[in-house]
Amino acid sequence: MRQGHQTWVFPSRPVILSTAAIGGPFEAKGPLGEDFDITHGDLMLGQDSWEKAEKVLLEEACDKALEKAGLQKEQVHFLLAGDLMNQIITSSFSARTLGIPYIGLFGACSTAMESLALGALLVDSQSADYVLAATGSHNGAAEKQYRYPTEYGSQKPPTAQWTVTGAGAAVVGNKGSGLRVHAATIGRIVDMGLSDPFNMGAAMAPAALSTIETHFRDMRLPHDHYDLVVTGDLGKVGHQILSELLPKHNVDIPLDRYIDCGKLIYGDNPTVWSGGSGCGCVATVTYGHLLRRMREGEWKRILVVATGALLSPISYQQGESIPCIAHAVAIEAEHPEEG
Amino acid sequence: MRQGHQTWVFPSRPVILSTAAIGGPFEAKGPLGEDFDITHGDLMLGQDSWEKAEKVLLEEACDKALEKAGLQKEQVHFLLAGDLMNQIITSSFSARTLGIPYIGLFGACSTAMESLALGALLVDSQSADYVLAATGSHNGAAEKQYRYPTEYGSQKPPTAQWTVTGAGAAVVGNKGSGLRVHAATIGRIVDMGLSDPFNMGAAMAPAALSTIETHFRDMRLPHDHYDLVVTGDLGKVGHQILSELLPKHNVDIPLDRYIDCGKLIYGDNPTVWSGGSGCGCVATVTYGHLLRRMREGEWKRILVVATGALLSPISYQQGESIPCIAHAVAIEAEHPEEG
Repeated sequence: MRQGHQTWVFPSRPVILSTAAIGGPFEAKGPLGEDFDITHGDLMLGQDSWEKAEKVLLEEACDKALEKAGLQKEQVHFLLAGDLMNQIITSSFSARTLGIPYIGLFGACSTAMESLALGALLVDSQSADYVLAATGSHNGAAEKQYRYPTEYGSQKPPTAQWTVTGAGAAVVGNKGSGLRVHAATIGRIVDMGLSDPFNMGAAMAPAALSTIETHFRDMRLPHDHYDLVVTGDLGKVGHQILSELLPKHNVDIPLDRYIDCGKLIYGDNPTVWSGGSGCGCVATVTYGHLLRRMREGEWKRILVVATGALLSPISYQQGESIPCIAHAVAIEAEHPEEG
Repeated sequence: MRQGHQTWVFPSRPVILSTAAIGGPFEAKGPLGEDFDITHGDLMLGQDSWEKAEKVLLEEACDKALEKAGLQKEQVHFLLAGDLMNQIITSSFSARTLGIPYIGLFGACSTAMESLALGALLVDSQSADYVLAATGSHNGAAEKQYRYPTEYGSQKPPTAQWTVTGAGAAVVGNKGSGLRVHAATIGRIVDMGLSDPFNMGAAMAPAALSTIETHFRDMRLPHDHYDLVVTGDLGKVGHQILSELLPKHNVDIPLDRYIDCGKLIYGDNPTVWSGGSGCGCVATVTYGHLLRRMREGEWKRILVVATGALLSPISYQQGESIPCIAHAVAIEAEHPEEG
């Protein structure tokens, strides 16, 4: 059900029956290493290409989420998935393996919440009993496609981010117990004219601001409603920029309750410059770390704002700036007194 | 509302308030030339790259559809769009121009019906009052990205298809008069192991069969229910294959009521080998030609089955076969006695 211009409120509060997070070797050694369901010591995952390794990550995330939900893939009505690869081959080939009816999405790093938002809508509107929302990325595959050959060893500025090797998936259903999806806000493109692909945090921060502002306005909520507002993946640079933009635009989210997935995943490791990025960043941090802490009672309600930089190497080479977007999903712990 | 495993039936029957089709110079000279709202004599559309020309096609389709619906873009709640370009830049840059909250999709040539199906679901579930579903392609942009440089003049086998230069858009709303979206079936990946990107009709035909079979089973409809079953874009080769597969699988659609968008758009022109393809093929043929004829009373109900070959140049180079999908949407003329 629509509320305001671009927000959906889900009266049935679809249930997140399970989530799974898979991580690569570098992610496993980071501060959130314990939060992954599976981690890999081999960046190739035993495959002969990075693209095939990325597919294994996504398939493992889907399989693990299904296993944790106690569901067979035949019981899941739709898979909603997307990734950074050209023609989202990671998702489409995983959809082939799974055999689940498939809705392909592209929102770059915002795909994690684009898929969760649409999946919750399908469940809420009784268009599906169970859906699987999934996304992932692989550092090697992303570097090869978007940037220079890694063998070239090109240096990067401190505003650059490190694409996460990892994947996350969530099973959403119309019954059962678990965290619940309360609402979702679909973003619009915000493009402030920035064109530096090594500073995507700065490019994406205004898109996150737009969606956060819209969410609170559409929902008519006080700015301190959520225990945590999480962006992903602005990194240190984008987190700082958004921390300054929010009060300037009178969005008075307590700044000690505002965190970013790109800052969290690698902690203070200076080798990743501004922090993590990629579809796997917000997916693994949300599905592995944040929702686990919510289940443990640390937070009651959070707003996850996944940002995406919708550029391509061609659009950059042709002198275009970076169109950015952010999609937000509100997740709340089940209240026994309401259940 | 879900019916069967993978079909949505829309009780409110969302209204297709308007459609628009834009064509390139070659398409304008074809047998459906008169059905386009706008045609261009210049393949570059006055732009300095094919990618930018493709964006103009999509933006024109969206603008024209909005104009014909008598709506301002501010009244449209969501744009659902996708295309063949890496990272669907055509759609994302058009979403920037339009400023409408944006749901990015990827289903290759199936995107036309993926976007219409999801758009109708948003309207039916009261998650939107008006949506815009749009997709397009450009021959030059697709050749450059998927195949050889056109200057190379490489020859193609007779099973190859010609990517359509064109775009189509539809405005769907919860009130007003027009054709109505009755139901939609979301496909699953079908991959018969074919890997020849110059014979995508053969690769995609089994995916179309799967979705058509599922649609009739989920809907419990007799096989002669529709006045027309339309695939897009199997071309002559794929149309012939599916015409043989359907009776073999006891799907007794009268074969004189089965046509293909890839066959229609260029007629018998032998220079396009097996026929048209690309996101713009099914979009322009459906939104320009077929729905126009429905409005004129030629057909009362049609099923449009948009097929997509979800390969990428990388997946092909790495020896993978072609995962295919088809999404179907049932469109019916308004019956005054029911209205």
